Order: sequence, then C-alpha cells, then structure tokens
Amino acid sequence: MKLNPYYDDLKQNYLFATIEEKVAAIKEAHPGKSLIYMGIGDVTLPLSDSVTAAIKAACDEMATPAGFHGYGPYRGYDFLLDAIRGYYKARGVELARDEIYVGDGAKTDTACFSDLFDRDNVVAVADPVYPVYFDSNVMDGRPITLLAATRENDFLPLPDESLRADVIYLCSPSNPTGAVYSKEQLKLWVDYANAHDALILFDAAYEAYITQDDKPHSIFEIEGARNCAVEFCSLSKNAGFTGTRASYVVIPNVLERGGKNLGKLWLRRQSTKFNGTPYIIQRGAAAVFSEEGQREVLSMVGYYQENARMLASAFTELGVYFTGGVNSPYLWFEAPNGETSWGFFDRLLNEVGVVSTPGAGFGVNGEGFLRLTAFNTHENTKEACERLKKMF
Amino acid sequence: MKLNPYYDDLKQNYLFATIEEKVAAIKEAHPGKSLIYMGIGDVTLPLSDSVTAAIKAACDEMATPAGFHGYGPYRGYDFLLDAIRGYYKARGVELARDEIYVGDGAKTDTACFSDLFDRDNVVAVADPVYPVYFDSNVMDGRPITLLAATRENDFLPLPDESLRADVIYLCSPSNPTGAVYSKEQLKLWVDYANAHDALILFDAAYEAYITQDDKPHSIFEIEGARNCAVEFCSLSKNAGFTGTRASYVVIPNVLERGGKNLGKLWLRRQSTKFNGTPYIIQRGAAAVFSEEGQREVLSMVGYYQENARMLASAFTELGVYFTGGVNSPYLWFEAPNGETSWGFFDRLLNEVGVVSTPGAGFGVNGEGFLRLTAFNTHENTKEACERLKKMF
Repeated sequence: MKLNPYYDDLKQNYLFATIEEKVAAIKEAHPGKSLIYMGIGDVTLPLSDSVTAAIKAACDEMATPAGFHGYGPYRGYDFLLDAIRGYYKARGVELARDEIYVGDGAKTDTACFSDLFDRDNVVAVADPVYPVYFDSNVMDGRPITLLAATRENDFLPLPDESLRADVIYLCSPSNPTGAVYSKEQLKLWVDYANAHDALILFDAAYEAYITQDDKPHSIFEIEGARNCAVEFCSLSKNAGFTGTRASYVVIPNVLERGGKNLGKLWLRRQSTKFNGTPYIIQRGAAAVFSEEGQREVLSMVGYYQENARMLASAFTELGVYFTGGVNSPYLWFEAPNGETSWGFFDRLLNEVGVVSTPGAGFGVNGEGFLRLTAFNTHENTKEACERLKKMF
Repeated sequence: MKLNPYYDDLKQNYLFATIEEKVAAIKEAHPGKSLIYMGIGDVTLPLSDSVTAAIKAACDEMATPAGFHGYGPYRGYDFLLDAIRGYYKARGVELARDEIYVGDGAKTDTACFSDLFDRDNVVAVADPVYPVYFDSNVMDGRPITLLAATRENDFLPLPDESLRADVIYLCSPSNPTGAVYSKEQLKLWVDYANAHDALILFDAAYEAYITQDDKPHSIFEIEGARNCAVEFCSLSKNAGFTGTRASYVVIPNVLERGGKNLGKLWLRRQSTKFNGTPYIIQRGAAAVFSEEGQREVLSMVGYYQENARMLASAFTELGVYFTGGVNSPYLWFEAPNGETSWGFFDRLLNEVGVVSTPGAGFGVNGEGFLRLTAFNTHENTKEACERLKKMF
C-alpha cells in the first residue's frame, strides 16, 4: 500500500518541541531558576461555576434511564444552537438554526473543512500564520500562496490585483500577531472572494478579546459575506475550553460553490466522519451563553485583557514596536537591534527566564518578532514586564 | 474554487432517514400504536456510577486553578493510556504506552485514518458493511473492492488468490451481521496482509460482546498482526459512551509501510487536525477500566446479551436463519419466503410495530436480511420476540 505522499512535504513541527527542549535544558542547568511561561497559547483560569454546574447536572441526567443521551444530532443539540444564535443576534447577526454546526474545536473544524475542497485549489494563508491552516492543506497536496503580513501592512494583508486564490484563510484577531481587521478591510476580502468565486474561511476564535467597538467580531457583519464565507469559532479562549473542547462553524444557507450547498456538504462530511460533541460538553457550552455564563466570560477575558494591557504598556514605555494586546491575548513584538527570533528567544529565556514563542516559527515574515501570551496570572505578568524592561 | 468531486459519488444516506420517515408516517396514521425500536445501534442504559463520579470529580478539579487542565497530550493522558494497557494485558496482549492513541470515537478514528493513505490504494470492505468505511474512502476517491459476505461464508469473507487489496477493513464482531472471526480465520487475513504489503484496519468496537472463549477480542492476539494491523476500539457499546465519546487506536511501534512509521504519521495527523478528547471525558473513560468500572461494564453488556439471547432463541425456535446474537448485540436474520429487506421491514413495522434496519441498506448482499439490535429493555425485547413469532 502507498502512504499519502504529501506528508513528506510537511516541515516537522519542531517549534514547540524545540521550545520545550530549551526550557528543559535550562531547568536542568539551573534548577532553582524562576521561569514565566508566556509561550503556548493555553488558558490558565479554571472553568467557571455555571459551566461546571451545567456539566455536572448533565452527568446526573446521563446516569438515569430517562435522562440518558446516546448519539446526538449531527449539527449539535438545539439548546446549544439556539444559545449560539442568541449570541450572534445580540451583535446584530441573524442566523438560522441550521446554519450552525457544533464541533469539538476550531482546530479540528478548520483543518477538516478542507476535506470539502478539490486538491486543485490555490489556498491563501497569511505569513506568519497559525500553522494548522498551512499544514492541513500541505497534507492534501494543495498549492499554497502566502499573503505577506509585515510591519508595512500592520500584519494585515489585503487582496490585490495579482492575487490568485480559491480558498482564503483569515484569522482576526490574528494568531499569532494579534492584529485585527477593520470592517473596511474585511469588505475588501469579501469583495475579492465574491468577484473571484473564492471562499473565505474566517477564524474568529479570538473575537471575545476585541475591545474596540468598531472592529468586527464576525465576518457576517460585512455585507456580502453570506455568499462567500464560513466562520469558525471556539469556546477555548473565551470560556477556557482548551481542555474541554467545543466549537462551532457557521455556514450560511445561501452559500454555494459549483451549484452545491456548502452546509449540506459539511453535514455529509460530519455525519460520516464525526459523531458529535459529547452531550455533557454541549450542556457546558450552552451555559457559556447564559446571562451568568457571559458575565463569567467577561470576567475571565477581562482578566487576560488586563495582562495584555500590562504588556502593551511595557512595550509602549520601552518604545518597542508591537501589534496585538488591544484586541487580542497575544502581543507580537519586534526583537531589539535586529536580533533574530530565536536569538532573542534564547536571551529572554536564559537572562530573565521568560518563555516566549519565536515569530520565525510561524513563517518567514515572523523573523525578528516574538509572541507573548496574556494567559497567565497578573502577578506573573507584572513580573514578566519588569524582566522585559531589562532586555531593551 | 472547486469542490471535492468525489462527494458526488456518495449515495445519499437515505437508510436511516427513510426509516425515520416511515416510522413518522405510521405514528401519524396510528397515534396509539405501540412501537419497539430495534433499528439504530444506540445503547439505552444510563452511564454507570463510577463513570459519572469520575467525570464529576474531574469537573471539580477543572474548577480550581491547581486542577485545571488546558490542552492535553495529543496521544491522551497517561492515566488513560495505562488503563487501556492494563485492559489489553489482562487478555495477554502487551502494548507500549506510546502504541495507544485516544480519540473521540471509533467512527472518527476509522474514517480519518484514511487521511494517511494515498488515493491510489485499493480498499477492501465487506458487503454488507458499516457504511463509514465505504463512504470515507469514496470521499477520498479511492477504488473500493467488495468482499462478499453471504450466507455461504457465514458472513465472514476470507482472502483468496484473486484478491488485490492494499487496505482491508475488518469489523469483528461485525456490524451489521454480528458474525465474528475465529483466530484461524483472522490469521488468514494477517498472512494475506503481510504477504501483500497490505494494511488491516481492525474495528473491535463490539469485542466486549464476545461470549465464546476461543474468539479473538483483538487482532493482536494473532501472530504477525503487529506488522500489518491497526486496531480501533470504542467505549460506546460496552460502557454506553455513544453520547459521551471516547475511543482508542492501537498502532504497533513496529508497524511501517514504505519505510515510514504509521504511529508517527497518525500522531502528525492528530496533532494537526485534532486537539484531544476532553480531560473530563478521559477521566470517565479511565473509570471504565477500573475494577468497579469493569464490573459495571460486565453488567451492562450482560443485560444487552440477555436481550440478544432472547432474540436468538426466538429465531432458533422459529427455524429462522440468523448470525450474531451470541457474540454481538446485533442479530442479522433472513426475511421469510424470499421477501426483500424493505418489504419485510414494512410488514414488521406495520403489522407488529417492530422497527428494524433493512439489510439492503448495508450493501447488495444484505438484500433479504434485516438487522435487530439488543439495545433495549428486557420487557421490550420479550414483547418483540412475541411479535416476531407472529410474522414467520
């Protein structure tokens, strides 16, 4: 038998493995050293009361013959679909119930959505980029065109006449740069997609971090998007579901390509290759959208936003160029004196014990930059700011 | 942009939709009619005490800063991997911890495993067959060869000289026929695969239902299997996880094709396209393998097995040909007087109110047969037996 030949084209995913090795080495060499972890984008605050209460109540249901739930509906339970609809409606976006598909994570959803595409599509991804968009298409053998995200365009690439792309991945607020598109900028992408029969896959996983009122949380706030866009969102970064796993995909019912309805294709894919998000997790996810749940989300996101503000203030004070921090839990900053990503990563780690992520790990244009996350305690973040000040 | 052209080759999945329509129609026409559902293979008993206790305790952990778990290890947590190892060891199969990969369902795992294969492989599946093996390969555009499962071979196809297959799906005990391979028969498949550089994907989702001591629960009980087989298993049908979602894949460390390690490829696939089974669900899954959990599994499986025995006795008494029931929660029986699957399905539904699944829905060779499940109460199963007796 023959293996998928395209796996050979993947870069080995050394980024976080290399970071782990370097951290392990310094811990061995200096066992007492104080390290502050601001590398991997994983949340730190515990699950909220209303989420755990809902999951535990659902467990109690599942322990009774009358309350037991076996295979669930492929799209997700109506109680969760309606909760998500309510969340969108509060921002002025009307969705039909059957335009929402519950999943187990935006990573899975964005990576697997490409199952619906022919191999012969040109895929556009930003550089630097969340590696999943890139790798999942490499695995399928699709040609990829890189959209340069640089200091010159504020790390927000836009379409131009020369671009030829069939599928476009946009992440706003961006992982890794924290940059966020304005409505006018997203409109340019929507217009491009509608003019060129392209499809936008819009990753809104960080929308809860937007603080500026004029920035769009959903691509469906943009006119014309229902004809060219699919939106992905997750409960990982707002409600702390990184280890609990729930997400949703929004596919407008009008969205067609080649005369075919994208929602129906995705449902066919999901009903063949997925068996739904656990009932108890869907109950926990629905609690996130309750009044109390939203208060808790605001409080959790607010806690991380305060960390982001601390980091942003430190960089501003130091005169360091950065993006993110304002509408994002990520800060993307330039290394001093033209140092490389990995060079400054090593110095940050060895000299002041701060673990970051080298920007070069996200793409060629990430060279010279680093990413810090706001997912930490106030105390650690404050201490990290003090340590950073010694480095510039 | 171009869509995946192979989705056009899928049969629309009318089977269970059609069944639902027919059931809805009869409910409307005869609102008071007593119906017994023995169609879809979904469990009915509630989650066990030790599982719900473990999940709720894990929820409490997740609600504390010290006990919070974010992104987990891609393979699954060691506590679950070790629990699964212990389960295999008790049956004489030694596995290394890094030969096990926790997933969210055997459907997802078997369907997505084909991501690792080139399009240019001939895939062999039984006919009749669990539709997921077939459909997931149609979606990828792979040629499929059907292994006729008929009354003549006891619904257990075996390899012969003429077979050309690169990837072979085997499900034992079988969904839908309930037939189970002997060690000698599986050895023929293992020898075929090793001689022809083929790969066996062995679905053991129903292994807990095996009552005959000499039947293999795992393909790794067969000599040579570590060089040619991957095993899939699930907690759905033994511990009632159809709505809770946990599974595992076993890939021997020695298993290579084209000089490449299959386990490493699967880990690369999973780390790009999946973010793990929820922590709380993994805690519940580990409880299944505890001493108390295994007692509960025996009791649940035993309950369904008693239903299967009742159905088997009824068919035996009636002189109806059937497979399954002994080592499986499914009974696969022949319609009387050469009736078609759908013809007898309709009569069962209309005349005695028993909902079955027409065998023709699982493949051409399923014509003339029907499937009943043992996932029901004793009372309903007993009543169903009485009703069946009126039909032959």
